Amino acid sequence: MSEEDASLRETVLALQKEVRALRAKATAAEAHLAICNLQAAYGYYVDKGLWDEAADMFAPDGTLEIAGRGVYIGQDRVRQYLHALPPYERGTIFNHMQLQPVIHIDPDGQTAKGRWRAFILIAWLGGEARWGEAVYENAYQLIDGVWRISKLHAFITFYCEYDRGPNHGGVPMVRKIDGLQPDQPSTHDYEAFPEIFIPPFHYANPVSGRSW
Amino acid sequence: MSEEDASLRETVLALQKEVRALRAKATAAEAHLAICNLQAAYGYYVDKGLWDEAADMFAPDGTLEIAGRGVYIGQDRVRQYLHALPPYERGTIFNHMQLQPVIHIDPDGQTAKGRWRAFILIAWLGGEARWGEAVYENAYQLIDGVWRISKLHAFITFYCEYDRGPNHGGVPMVRKIDGLQPDQPSTHDYEAFPEIFIPPFHYANPVSGRSW
Amino acid sequence: MSEEDASLRETVLALQKEVRALRAKATAAEAHLAICNLQAAYGYYVDKGLWDEAADMFAPDGTLEIAGRGVYIGQDRVRQYLHALPPYERGTIFNHMQLQPVIHIDPDGQTAKGRWRAFILIAWLGGEARWGEAVYENAYQLIDGVWRISKLHAFITFYCEYDRGPNHGGVPMVRKIDGLQPDQPSTHDYEAFPEIFIPPFHYANPVSGRSW
Repeated sequence: MSEEDASLRETVLALQKEVRALRAKATAAEAHLAICNLQAAYGYYVDKGLWDEAADMFAPDGTLEIAGRGVYIGQDRVRQYLHALPPYERGTIFNHMQLQPVIHIDPDGQTAKGRWRAFILIAWLGGEARWGEAVYENAYQLIDGVWRISKLHAFITFYCEYDRGPNHGGVPMVRKIDGLQPDQPSTHDYEAFPEIFIPPFHYANPVSGRSW
Repeated sequence: MSEEDASLRETVLALQKEVRALRAKATAAEAHLAICNLQAAYGYYVDKGLWDEAADMFAPDGTLEIAGRGVYIGQDRVRQYLHALPPYERGTIFNHMQLQPVIHIDPDGQTAKGRWRAFILIAWLGGEARWGEAVYENAYQLIDGVWRISKLHAFITFYCEYDRGPNHGGVPMVRKIDGLQPDQPSTHDYEAFPEIFIPPFHYANPVSGRSW
Repeated sequence: MSEEDASLRETVLALQKEVRALRAKATAAEAHLAICNLQAAYGYYVDKGLWDEAADMFAPDGTLEIAGRGVYIGQDRVRQYLHALPPYERGTIFNHMQLQPVIHIDPDGQTAKGRWRAFILIAWLGGEARWGEAVYENAYQLIDGVWRISKLHAFITFYCEYDRGPNHGGVPMVRKIDGLQPDQPSTHDYEAFPEIFIPPFHYANPVSGRSW
């Protein structure tokens, strides 16, 4: 092999290595953005009571846990849970704004975790209106090339009456869905505002590397 | 050609293919993030009544449609429309928070679509204050290497008086800009809260692949 | 060198160039998303008064400037400032939603700038509740492979009492932290709503290229 040939071969090997590293970066960015799209799209479906669309986004064995209402396991049970929520009909607002993602793709590129905040405005004409917030700690899974929600876990941090404001008190968490029993009890025992609770973080501090 | 040479040639061809695929991924991620920047920047201009800055972001033949006020076609008409909105002056808040993007870059990388939500707080000191929401279904175009808004379509989903709250009723959509006539009538006939309306989705369900 | 060899060599050189360009794109996307994660994570810490976690995110010589309270220089001073804020305790909400990023990575990939909006809801049970907004113009620095906040500058644009609404007036900016003196005076002289102020932009209009 000539010197020139050897040098070309080395260049190609270096390129291969570089391309492998780039592939990992590009795939992680693609996954990050796909998950942002996924969770945002989920929110738009929830707003309008499109429960089947929302349920379809879960992995077959995906789980759902909201407030202190226990864990629902598998897409069918998630669907049941969602259909037990209030319908979108004249005089309702059920907006769940999906905000402030912190997304981490696992090294194998097949699973991921995300923290989000849902900023909530719900209202019934002639009834109640409420501001609220949930912090989500979710997990995602790549199945047949498509990202799905494998775990949706919403920690409700506060609800307050629109007419009174949070300085006048919070609304206690609803701990049950009428007519439904969860598959497993709640994973965390907590109460929303005015009590205090810090939803756990799936990540360590990105700078110090220390877990809180 | 030696066996070694043949194998090197194959490696290079495989790399070429891989790099082409990576280029598509990287370009899509770059476009996605540029469009997020673009729409977010648009929102900051709108907040402060910087109408020329906002109009500059449109494609030459870009269109604007807000609420039931018809379609304005071309950057000049968009500029006219925007300048007919209230000025930013002492005692005003005109905040249009740009949230929850669902972005899809078309396969050719030259056009894109995005769903967003504007969460709105407007106020006039000594006058009215309102919370509101628009769902945008926008389109974007890459022109001379720069992403522009080619269609901005805001579906108003609710406005309510800050002082009363949405449980006490919604504010009907304003269907006209004083002194202006649109180039085309509204593309959709709908009313905001308390009526019901689901803004159309530019995308199918990302998991099931079914259109709602 | 045979013609085939020469052509292979050219192909490899072209690939090298292409990969270099891709590396720049992929690194910029990675940085953009890392900074989104960083600022979002900062917000979750602030919500819950986790001041040491928030301070850890700053560069050693990072700066903090909020409202008209002057500039605090260096991570230790930032930490001091943050610890002077109200604690997270029963009956408090201190939510700082981190929204609407406009991120620009500098060409060397070592520094970046970002505009954000914090949409704020704070409340003390039996006391006051307020809606507010800050526009951030922040800077970031890559140190040992990790993005940090090198400048956090929050321009408060409004605060209003939840019980009264912004149409009934704004709350003047707090210009001092009890018991603390800044290292440098404020860089900008302004007042929040109902006065007018447009926080400066770190970027030119992305389409026209003109600075406002």
